[in-house]
Order: sequence, then structure tokens, then C-alpha cells
Amino acid sequence: MTPEESKILKRRLYKIIFEADTPAGKLFDVILIWSIILSVILVIVESSHEYHDRYQVWFTAGEWLFTLLFTAEYILRIYTVRKKSVYILSFYGVVDLLAILPTYISLLFPGSQYLMVIRILRLMRVFRVFKLTTFISEANTLRKALLASSRKILVFLSAIALLVIVIGSIMYVIEGPSHGFKDIPTSIYWAVVTLTTVGYGDISPQTGVGQFFASIVMILGYSIIAVPTGIMSAEFSRMRNRTDNSTARVCQNCMREGHDPEARYCKFCGGIIDTD
Amino acid sequence: MTPEESKILKRRLYKIIFEADTPAGKLFDVILIWSIILSVILVIVESSHEYHDRYQVWFTAGEWLFTLLFTAEYILRIYTVRKKSVYILSFYGVVDLLAILPTYISLLFPGSQYLMVIRILRLMRVFRVFKLTTFISEANTLRKALLASSRKILVFLSAIALLVIVIGSIMYVIEGPSHGFKDIPTSIYWAVVTLTTVGYGDISPQTGVGQFFASIVMILGYSIIAVPTGIMSAEFSRMRNRTDNSTARVCQNCMREGHDPEARYCKFCGGIIDTD
Amino acid sequence: MTPEESKILKRRLYKIIFEADTPAGKLFDVILIWSIILSVILVIVESSHEYHDRYQVWFTAGEWLFTLLFTAEYILRIYTVRKKSVYILSFYGVVDLLAILPTYISLLFPGSQYLMVIRILRLMRVFRVFKLTTFISEANTLRKALLASSRKILVFLSAIALLVIVIGSIMYVIEGPSHGFKDIPTSIYWAVVTLTTVGYGDISPQTGVGQFFASIVMILGYSIIAVPTGIMSAEFSRMRNRTDNSTARVCQNCMREGHDPEARYCKFCGGIIDTD
Amino acid sequence: MTPEESKILKRRLYKIIFEADTPAGKLFDVILIWSIILSVILVIVESSHEYHDRYQVWFTAGEWLFTLLFTAEYILRIYTVRKKSVYILSFYGVVDLLAILPTYISLLFPGSQYLMVIRILRLMRVFRVFKLTTFISEANTLRKALLASSRKILVFLSAIALLVIVIGSIMYVIEGPSHGFKDIPTSIYWAVVTLTTVGYGDISPQTGVGQFFASIVMILGYSIIAVPTGIMSAEFSRMRNRTDNSTARVCQNCMREGHDPEARYCKFCGGIIDTD
Repeated sequence: MTPEESKILKRRLYKIIFEADTPAGKLFDVILIWSIILSVILVIVESSHEYHDRYQVWFTAGEWLFTLLFTAEYILRIYTVRKKSVYILSFYGVVDLLAILPTYISLLFPGSQYLMVIRILRLMRVFRVFKLTTFISEANTLRKALLASSRKILVFLSAIALLVIVIGSIMYVIEGPSHGFKDIPTSIYWAVVTLTTVGYGDISPQTGVGQFFASIVMILGYSIIAVPTGIMSAEFSRMRNRTDNSTARVCQNCMREGHDPEARYCKFCGGIIDTD
Repeated sequence: MTPEESKILKRRLYKIIFEADTPAGKLFDVILIWSIILSVILVIVESSHEYHDRYQVWFTAGEWLFTLLFTAEYILRIYTVRKKSVYILSFYGVVDLLAILPTYISLLFPGSQYLMVIRILRLMRVFRVFKLTTFISEANTLRKALLASSRKILVFLSAIALLVIVIGSIMYVIEGPSHGFKDIPTSIYWAVVTLTTVGYGDISPQTGVGQFFASIVMILGYSIIAVPTGIMSAEFSRMRNRTDNSTARVCQNCMREGHDPEARYCKFCGGIIDTD
Repeated sequence: MTPEESKILKRRLYKIIFEADTPAGKLFDVILIWSIILSVILVIVESSHEYHDRYQVWFTAGEWLFTLLFTAEYILRIYTVRKKSVYILSFYGVVDLLAILPTYISLLFPGSQYLMVIRILRLMRVFRVFKLTTFISEANTLRKALLASSRKILVFLSAIALLVIVIGSIMYVIEGPSHGFKDIPTSIYWAVVTLTTVGYGDISPQTGVGQFFASIVMILGYSIIAVPTGIMSAEFSRMRNRTDNSTARVCQNCMREGHDPEARYCKFCGGIIDTD
Repeated sequence: MTPEESKILKRRLYKIIFEADTPAGKLFDVILIWSIILSVILVIVESSHEYHDRYQVWFTAGEWLFTLLFTAEYILRIYTVRKKSVYILSFYGVVDLLAILPTYISLLFPGSQYLMVIRILRLMRVFRVFKLTTFISEANTLRKALLASSRKILVFLSAIALLVIVIGSIMYVIEGPSHGFKDIPTSIYWAVVTLTTVGYGDISPQTGVGQFFASIVMILGYSIIAVPTGIMSAEFSRMRNRTDNSTARVCQNCMREGHDPEARYCKFCGGIIDTD
């Protein structure tokens, strides 16, 4: 193989592996996504002791099949990419490596059962493929709304954290270790379970005073969920409106969009906008 | 019966069965809806072993009464409709058939108890009648808002699914089979129970690390419910505004819109607006 | 007492009992509200067996004190009001009677313990007094928002009812009586517990298929709470906007309010509005 | 030390302790915040019996270290502040005293274990330092939104309180003491647990009627959470809009407001707007 041929091969492989414009590239993505999903299902099902003992040979075979497949893919990615170290140290490069490493390590250390769960992280690789789909714009809207209100949400979460520590401590004094609130960390855990309205019931107040105080905490938790919801609603409404307005009219003078419904003059160039 | 008479009868029956404009058609709808509701209540009550054993004769009698009634209705529908195959293969045609089939099958295979539950699907038939009521416009608003944000909701649900798999796997490693998290599917089930703030308590973390991680998951679940709620709020707000505007009128003088329902003069030019 | 004196007395009593403008009327309201609250606390504490047995004499004494007080008030209300039958048959007339009846009935039928709980309904009487406070405008806003979206909420609740029946029936088939889902009504109860994210855990799925289906129901419940919330948010936003606008400017010509911020002419009379 | 030197020292210490503009003041705040957090973690960990018994000496040592540190800080604060009695009786003055008192009291009364939990209140002192951070504006927005709708929320909470009392009493009659609803306070506690969708499951209805009534309560609780959420959403939306407008500028030509941040020409008259 001449260097010229090698270069052409590299470029062709790059187009297939990293892009999704060609039919071959699309096919590669579809196969990759199904391999990821199937290998993750394999890990999930294997964790069940019942199936694990009965079909152990098949699980091992399937696991090695996917590992070799992903190893081949990993080597090809390194081969075709120009700046190899950049890819290897990138977020997806590390995830790609983590997806194949546990199986090889299990050869050296046979008992490392829990390490196998790292293979679940293969799921992250699905995001790379999804990046190419049309869903990205919707996901972007969600991400923008979250970012725009991230500071408000941080203040909200700090307030929740302080609240939960104080509530947990008070409850520890009220109920005490004899009713399941064995120390303050456990009481704080109970406060989180109650304030978020999860309510396992593994720990619950037994004295009258404790039940009264717990009732107040519940109504508090039931009410303050309105805060993050209100923040997000306002954010989405604002985004929605901005989108609605931007589709409105075009200035004939400077051809720019984004005018308010009641605008009579272009806010960018001062030209008159037709009000039809 | 001459073909002419048969044709007139068919048309008259069609008007009664499929439409609700005539008094006879309305009466038919009311009888049908009560038959459906009563037959569903019969199925629900019959499932209780206590009543089942005591009044078995009455349940069987009632069941056959409704089955024969619905069979008669089904035959009449096929008789009166013009394109018979289209009706039979339509969604409501299949539901109509499923509503009567289980009782006949129980004659051939006496033990098919669980099959009887299919009769609950008769409830679907209520929707056909409701289609004719005035509630349809409200239901439409709800449906439109759901459709308009269906893509955002799909992205949200995919994110939830991925989150739940990752959280479940991590919790499986933290708590392990000895604390109730017997395999990854069970851990994922726990993650769903916790993230949605349902919190049965059939499985709950017992170690300190597990309770700390669970607390984070709960606060996460408590916070991200704001996302679908924010999406829907923005959608309903937009629809509300659009509806408000669509009822508005145009000033004959300056041709501008956006007048309140009670306005008698144009707020832009002062001209009179027709109040029709 | 001459008829004239009796008339003056009646009017003075009416002002005290039914109105709250005079100092005596305000004092009467404050005493009444505290009597109601204390008598309700008495009923609640009395239900506790521990206190009931120990302080039975005091409970009986207190109960008769409040009953005689409310009886006197009831007689005075009938005496001072002009159209006696209208008051007696009105909502508050019936509540006033129900507040005193159970204690008298307990004289005739000593064992009617549960009847005593009807006395809790005295709480309703608090609303009559609250009607006079400044809180009424806020309560009105809430009531209006609920009324304005009542049809949407009714459609939503009907959909929930149908959903819960279908989910309950499917779960009855999946899990069956051996796992706690003993009949369809119980399964429907489980469906409500799960869909509303309450999650008692008294009944919970035990098979893998059941847990998978339950997970879907939970995520469904977690998502569709966005619907009523979105409806109410949109409603409150609209009301908020309307209030903001109505406080805006006054037409110098016809002195009417409620103009939009961008309005230059009065929408009621066509006069020019000052834009300051 | 001359009085003059003492005055200069006082002013310098005041700047360090109460303000955060100088490097020394910032350093003091950082050290203070970490001392508070570490001392609170100490209290939380100490509550665990396991650690308490093993490392008791270290806990006592750490506790005295922090107590002496906070005592020194408290004395310095009193020393540097001008109006001493105002500081001592202020909210933060009392919290500062409560943060050191329990440890000294434990010398006199060795068994006062629960008193130690008061030390958790040291967390309050974190707020004083946070007051100086940039997060304050976000926290202010949250606080304003809560205040603006505080009356609506109060009406909502009163309605919840009345609802919960009535529901609890009805459930007490339906289920009775034999099914865990041992008195009305306990039934009210159950009503709160159910209405807020917490759902511990420590008390749950067992009769058919009770389960039916509980289902209605759950759906009610699931629906009315929309009310506070709607209130807050509307409030945040309004604030958002006001903030958007408040950043806007005034056209020098027609003196009208409401221009977008990126606007260069007035949308009403076409005049140039200063972009400063």
C-alpha cells in the first residue's frame, strides 16, 4: 500500500466513522448504536444471578464479541484521526477506552465483578451518535433554559441543603435513636426523603410531636417545589416568546428579523416596516 | 322487504347508531354509554373473590346479557355501514370485536380467566361517544399542547431513561444484592421509584454511602420535574394568548388588530369597531 | 318590651352578629372564631383514647359549654334575621345546626361515638367569618383561576380515571392475587397510589414484568403532572397580566380604566389618552 | 496602649471582622466559613454512636477548639462594635451566642446531650457571610417572588390545613382505630402524608371504602399542587418581563420605552437611540 493509497483509505474511513452524511456512514452509526444498546442489555441481564448461572457461557461469548468489536472501532478511530493524542484524551476518547478496558482487566483479576458495571458507561457513547440527529435543537432548548436559570437553581439547592440539615437535626432531637432516627446523618436522609415527597417509609416519626413536625416539613416540601417549577416555566415562556417574535417580519431595508409585533420602524436601521 | 325499504331502514339505523343529532340517536348513545359503564363495573366487581363466589350466577347472567347486547350492536353496525371491511378493520371496529370475543372464547376454553380482563377495554368505546360532546374542544387543547411539545418531552424522557440506567447501576455497586438491590434491573426499578418521587420503600438504601447517593437522586428528581412542567406551562400560555387574539377584531379605519373583546373604539386610531 | 324596642334590639343584634363594621361586631367575630377553633381542637384531642379516658369529665363539660354557646348563637341568629326560613335552609344555616345537633343526639343514643365527628364540620363556620377579611380578594383570584380552567381540569380528571382503570386491570393480570393485587379494585387503588407518586408501598409489584410496567406508570405519572400545572400557570399568568393592565391609565373623557399599555385612544369612548 | 491606638485598632478589626472589602477581611470570612462548616460536620458525625464511642477524645478536642475560636470571635465582635447592646440583642448576636453556649453548659450539666444539637444552628451564621457574595441578587429575586405571592400562598396553606382536618376526620370514621388510624391527630397526619404525595405507608387504608376515599384524596393532592406552582410561575414570568424592560432605554425623539437591548433605532418613531 503506497502512502497515497493509505491517505485515501484514511479519509474514506474517517468519513464513515466520524460523519453521517454518506450511506456507509449512516449504516455504521446504526450498527454502532445497536451494538452499544445490545451490549448494555447484556450487562444488565447478566447481573441477574438466575440468568448468570444458567447461560454463563453465552454471556462471556457475547461480552467478548462486543469488546473485540469496540476494540476494532477504537483502533480504527485512532488510526483515521489526524491528532491522535487529542482524540485519546478527549471526553469521548476516554469513554471509548473505558468501554473496552473492564473486560480485559477481568482476564488479569478474575474476581473484579463490580468493575464490570463500568461497561454501563458505554451508554454515554450513544450521545455521540445522537449529536447528529434532528433532536439536537430540542435538547439545546432544554440545555439553554437550564443554563439561563442555573444560578437561581443553585441558590435554591443551597437553601434546600441548609434546610435539610436543620430539619434533620431538629427531628433527631424530637424522635431520637429509639424510633429509627439513629444519628443526624440518618435524620438528614429522612428529611430529604420527606421534603422531596419521596416517602419510603423505612424511617417515619412515631411520636405525636414528631408527626406534627413532619407534617409541616411535608407541606413545606409540597409548596416549595413551586419554586424551581416557576423558574423553569418563566424561562421557557421567555424563550418561546423570543422564538415567536423572531419569526415575525423582515425589514425591507436591511432584511433583518426579530421585530416586535407593534414595531413600525426597524430597530436596526430605522427604516419603515410594512404593517400588513 | 323490498330493496328500497331495506335502504331506508339502513339509513335510519345509521343515523341512530353512528350519529347523535336526532332524539333517537341521543337515546341510543345514552343507553350505550350506561351499558358500557355497567358492564365494566361488572368485570371489576367480579374480580373480587368474595363476591365472585357468592353471586356467580348473577355475574354470568349479566355478562351474557351485555355480550348479547354488544353483539347485536356490532352486527347492526356492520349491517348499516356502507364499506363493511373499512369499519371492521378500523380501530373502533377491532375494539368492538374485542369487547364481545372473550365471553364467547370462555365457552370453548373454560379456564381462560385472565382473558376476561380484556373486557375492560370496552372502556375505550366510551371515547367514541364522548367524541360527540362539547368537551371535545377542551380535550383538543390538551392534545395540541402535548403534540406541540412532544419532541421536547421525548428528549426529556430519553434523558430520564439514560439517567435511570446509570443511577441504577451505580446503586447496584454501592448497595449490592445483600441489601435488596439484587440485580441491575431491580436497581433501575429502584431508581425510577426514587427519581419520580413515588418511593414505595420495598427497596431502600441501608448503607451511609447509599443513603447519601439516594439523597442526591431524590433532590435531582425533585428538581427536574420542573422541566416538563415548564415546557407545558409555556405551551399553554402561548395557546391561551393565541386564543385571546383570535377572538379579536379588526378596526375598519386603520386595519389593526389586537382589540379586547369589550372594546368599542380602536385603541390606535380612535375609530369605531363593529360589535357584531 | 314594646314592639318598637324589640325592633331596635333586633337591628342592633343583627349588626353585631352578621356584620363586622362596629367594634361590638368585630369582638363577636373574634370570640366566635376562637370558640370554633377551641371546640374543634377539643374534638380532635378527645378522639385520642389516652386523653379520653383520663379527662373524660372535662371533655364532656367543655363540649356542653360550646354546644350551649353555639345553641344560643343559633337561636339569636334565627331571632334577628328577617326571613327565618331562608336562613335555616341556607348552607350556613344547615352547618350551624349540624354544629350543635350531635351533642344533643348523644343524649338520646349514648353509643353514637362516630356521629361526634360531625362536629368537625364546625370548621366550615370559620369561612363565614373569613368572608369579611381582606383575604377574600386573594381567595377570589384562586377561585376564578380554578373556575376558568375547570373544564380543562375535568377532562384531565376523566382521562386520569380511565387511565387508572386500564392500568389497574393490566397490573391485575400481570401480578395476580398472589402478589397482593387481590382484585381489580385493589389494583386500581395501586394504580392511583403509583400514578399520583404517593407510593405507600403496601402493595408493590414483585415480578420483573410488573416492575417494568410499574416503572412506565411512574414515569407517566411524573410527566403528566405537568398538564394541570401548565393549565393553572397559564391561567394565573393571564390574570396577572389583566390586573397589571387594568391598573394602567384612566381615560380623561369617560374615566374608565383597563387600557393596554400601547393604547393611544380610549377603547370605550374613543377619546385620546395621555401617554405620560 | 493609648486610647488613640485602641481606637485605630478597633476600626481596623471592625473592617476585618464585619466587612469583606480588604484582603484581610476576605481571608477572615473564608476562615470563618470553613470553621463553621467543619464544626457542623463534627456535630453531625459525632451523633453517630459508632464514631462517637471510638474517637470521643478527638470529638471533645475539636469541639473545644471551635468553641474557643468562636468565643474569641464573639468577644472581638463585642469589642469592636460601637453599640454593643444592639449587636448582642440582634438576630446574629443571639445566634453567635447560641453557637458557643451549649459547650460551656455541658461542663455544668454533663448529661445534656440533646442540647448539643443547638450547635447545628451555627449554620445560620453562614448566611451572614453569604450576604456579601454575588448570589445575593438571585436570592433576592426568589425572595421577592415569594413575598409578592405570600398572601396567595397563605390562603392556599389555610385551605390545605382545613382540608387536611376534614379529610383526617372522615378517614377516622371510615377506617377506625383497628386499622392504624388510632385517633383524629393520627388521621390528620395520614391526610398530610397522602395529600402531599409523600406516602410513607406506615398508615394506609385497608377497607374498600377507605381505599376509594384515599384514591380521591391522592388525585386531589396530585391536582392542587398545580395551584402554588401556577402562582409562582406567573410571579416569575412577570418579574422576568419587568427585568427585561428595566434594561431598556428611552428614545430621545418620542420619549417612549420598551426597546430591545440590541435596538439602535426607535421602533415607534425611527429616531436613533443612544447605545451607551
